[in-house]
Amino acid sequence: MLAKVFVTLKNGVLDPQGKAIHHAAESIGYQGIADVRQGKYFEIQLDAGLDEALARSQVEKFAHDVLSNPVIEDYRVEIS
Amino acid sequence: MLAKVFVTLKNGVLDPQGKAIHHAAESIGYQGIADVRQGKYFEIQLDAGLDEALARSQVEKFAHDVLSNPVIEDYRVEIS
Repeated sequence: MLAKVFVTLKNGVLDPQGKAIHHAAESIGYQGIADVRQGKYFEIQLDAGLDEALARSQVEKFAHDVLSNPVIEDYRVEIS
Repeated sequence: MLAKVFVTLKNGVLDPQGKAIHHAAESIGYQGIADVRQGKYFEIQLDAGLDEALARSQVEKFAHDVLSNPVIEDYRVEIS
């Protein structure tokens, strides 16, 4: 079972890294980009045979407590 | 139109950051985790009205040339 966790900055939080990527893209000729935001992505391989609902709640807790800073970041969990 | 780009280390490339997260998770009591891999995630807001096929090819090129290191990283693009 694979859990994917996406961590992104909350709306309204400045993202200088994203701005730098946006600026770089424009300076080398890419057009049509309105905004770039950078986030983090984690693939967590879980032991087979775990209960999916339990696994999701554990990964949600882990994402909240360890992988993200809930003051400035949102997270999203997908289990597949 | 929103493009999401996922950049992950290729299989076989060591991921010390993922290993550190895995170790930290176990040391604070999370069980059932077999492996953790860390990647990067980008949300690219594109101008409305762009042709989707053209947008995808441009974002694929941008992901290949700028957002990832194709020697050690894979990337995946989703347009929504």
